[in-house]
Amino acid sequence: QELRCQCIQTYSDFISPEFIKHVQLIPEGAHCGRKEIIVTLEDGKLICLDPEAEWVMIIIKKIINSAPN
Amino acid sequence: QELRCQCIQTYSDFISPEFIKHVQLIPEGAHCGRKEIIVTLEDGKLICLDPEAEWVMIIIKKIINSAPN
Repeated sequence: QELRCQCIQTYSDFISPEFIKHVQLIPEGAHCGRKEIIVTLEDGKLICLDPEAEWVMIIIKKIINSAPN
Repeated sequence: QELRCQCIQTYSDFISPEFIKHVQLIPEGAHCGRKEIIVTLEDGKLICLDPEAEWVMIIIKKIINSAPN
């Protein structure tokens, strides 16, 4: 893990959970004074989400509560 | 990202958010037929959490909603 903040800017628009391949939640700590939410999209792009955006929690809930295959 | 499931077993006991350095949420996909939640602890240990454990969502909420430093 890097020893600095990862996100230069955050994205606030809604992203559908079906395009999300991976989510990283990084609490604030010595390496960075703010929490960061980094999403890997299906096409491999990395996007930082705004932790204040309400839909972020909705997407995370959807990923965790989705029925297994 | 690996092309297989990452978790051999999951941990169901409560972990305090203050010991959590990093959380990865990996939705099910072609690489693995189940969602996985991988936590990095402050001491560097990796633990897979049970997505069905209710406290998992509480911890994630706490990380996302915590006030910035």
